[in-house]
Amino acid sequence: MLVNGKHYRTIWLSEDKKAVEIIDQRKLPFKFVIEGIQDVDKMCEAIRDMHLRGAGLIGSAAAYGMYLAALASVESTHLERSAQCLLSTRPTAVNLSYAVNKVLKKLKDSPEQERLAIACEMAGEISDMDAMQCKMIGRHGVKLIEEIGRRKKGETVNILTHCNAGWLAFVDYGSALSPIYEAFRKGINLHVYVDETRPRNQGARLTAWELAMQGVPHTVIADNTGGHLMQHGLVDMVIVGADRVAANGDTANKIGTYLKALAAKDNHVPFYVAFPSTTRDLAINDGIKEIEIEKRSGREVSFIEGLYEGKIVEVQLTPKESEAVNYGFDVTPARLITAWITEEGVFDFRQS
Amino acid sequence: MLVNGKHYRTIWLSEDKKAVEIIDQRKLPFKFVIEGIQDVDKMCEAIRDMHLRGAGLIGSAAAYGMYLAALASVESTHLERSAQCLLSTRPTAVNLSYAVNKVLKKLKDSPEQERLAIACEMAGEISDMDAMQCKMIGRHGVKLIEEIGRRKKGETVNILTHCNAGWLAFVDYGSALSPIYEAFRKGINLHVYVDETRPRNQGARLTAWELAMQGVPHTVIADNTGGHLMQHGLVDMVIVGADRVAANGDTANKIGTYLKALAAKDNHVPFYVAFPSTTRDLAINDGIKEIEIEKRSGREVSFIEGLYEGKIVEVQLTPKESEAVNYGFDVTPARLITAWITEEGVFDFRQS
Repeated sequence: MLVNGKHYRTIWLSEDKKAVEIIDQRKLPFKFVIEGIQDVDKMCEAIRDMHLRGAGLIGSAAAYGMYLAALASVESTHLERSAQCLLSTRPTAVNLSYAVNKVLKKLKDSPEQERLAIACEMAGEISDMDAMQCKMIGRHGVKLIEEIGRRKKGETVNILTHCNAGWLAFVDYGSALSPIYEAFRKGINLHVYVDETRPRNQGARLTAWELAMQGVPHTVIADNTGGHLMQHGLVDMVIVGADRVAANGDTANKIGTYLKALAAKDNHVPFYVAFPSTTRDLAINDGIKEIEIEKRSGREVSFIEGLYEGKIVEVQLTPKESEAVNYGFDVTPARLITAWITEEGVFDFRQS
Repeated sequence: MLVNGKHYRTIWLSEDKKAVEIIDQRKLPFKFVIEGIQDVDKMCEAIRDMHLRGAGLIGSAAAYGMYLAALASVESTHLERSAQCLLSTRPTAVNLSYAVNKVLKKLKDSPEQERLAIACEMAGEISDMDAMQCKMIGRHGVKLIEEIGRRKKGETVNILTHCNAGWLAFVDYGSALSPIYEAFRKGINLHVYVDETRPRNQGARLTAWELAMQGVPHTVIADNTGGHLMQHGLVDMVIVGADRVAANGDTANKIGTYLKALAAKDNHVPFYVAFPSTTRDLAINDGIKEIEIEKRSGREVSFIEGLYEGKIVEVQLTPKESEAVNYGFDVTPARLITAWITEEGVFDFRQS
């Protein structure tokens, strides 16, 4: 996608193939910083400390991490140690363990002299596959936006999204934002309401920045606002991403998604979930009962980062006597979801 | 209520009766600052620039503003000009125009030599009445908390509240928080989840501070969190305040209240609205259609105030290219509200 008019992915090989380059997302939207990563330890650090985040991107970064490991040595013990290091960075990230284990197995099954080339090729393939899946999510999802556009006879289609399920969370295109980018490319008149998404503000920081960089009309709102907008006909559809989708369609996504789904249902606004099909977890039957919700540091609620006199600083928001609690995700029951969009099409999981 | 162990109201006459003192709420929770107000122009400034806020407190401040006006001169033209100045500070505040017009009429109907004493007495009465109404809201509302406490056999009663409807919004006690303070005083085992209430963070700043000062156990949460908590049985009841209650029970309150009411309904959690009966507006039949929602500056979304190196500073949260929109209130349909609590009792307006 575009950054200041130039095309980027979120991760790529340096020209001399001796390093991997990423966008340091911790600095966005205030500073656009490209970070060169020379070895697997630095990649572990980048994943652990969230220089990059998002299911798809973490998988790709892990595969490139294995390539960086192979650059230093193609010995099996070194590769295994490197894989362990990568696996420990974000233990719950499914794409990460999938990518690391896939690359490690293939390398161990191959002669040493071929390992470096194979690692490079696999990291590229895993990244291309992620980008392609996201592109297909856009191709399928855009039809839903076009349909509303036709019904509104060219009037602005207003779409609400929560958190960041854009290209910054993947290698390119994104999940929830991919249909929006495709609709924008096709000239559909649209506008996006961006939930700021407290406490980490991925909407205000990342989604708003992505949309601004592509020139997509958008407005940032407090997370409290979506209900009022839907009540007054100001939202035509909601699209969000997913962290995990259970067999019954219950969908874990960033905290607050459930509240928007309730408002959508109450106001007859269609509510869509977009994700690569690898995010579906058929081992989970009942999402609300079975999906464990990560409790993160209360500090993310009590403090917030922003730009002050040109510097990114953290300010305190709450009384020093007050505790804060911070759940990372919630589960939206399938009954509130209109349909699920994957690279394979648009589905109603409640009927499957 | 208590501040660092000492009892305060939010507004009072100075000992020599030559000034009015208030808590400068703009500095809370970071600094507790008492501001002396010597004349009516300074009171207009304090109301307009939100040194104080909240329906009840604004009414009391306006009455004390008329007293300060009378201190300078009891001439009718001066009093009328002062009333105009006060009325222009927050044009939509019902309590403000009620208090100003009541005091002005009474003063104009009285001989000049009695006006100062009457203004002083009326300001005191308006303040005492506000405090008494809030106290009665607590007396009625506490029964609902006691009932849950009995059902839970002494286990913690978890209450969620949104925005600040505490003593800082009135002269004393508060509306939504008054039953909580009364329950705490009675020794009921309770805990309050405090929505931070973006964009102005009245929950994180004011409600959390109030509760901390009284020693009431509480936890600050992002506004996104309430749905998840209710889904998992972690909230026993919701109590919020109200800015306006229509004849049909539809209730305008801080933006985001509607989303919490939806979550409460979806999870069979009782949802209560507490307010002095003067907040009821019987001229409005259908709250959702008729109550106009104030659009405030988008800057309140794009920037936020917090404590940085001991100073209160404002940091930017959004990309400079992104617009933000900021609706101050939303309307919760009566069908989502379990009951309304006023100084007169607990009512179901849907049946009236």
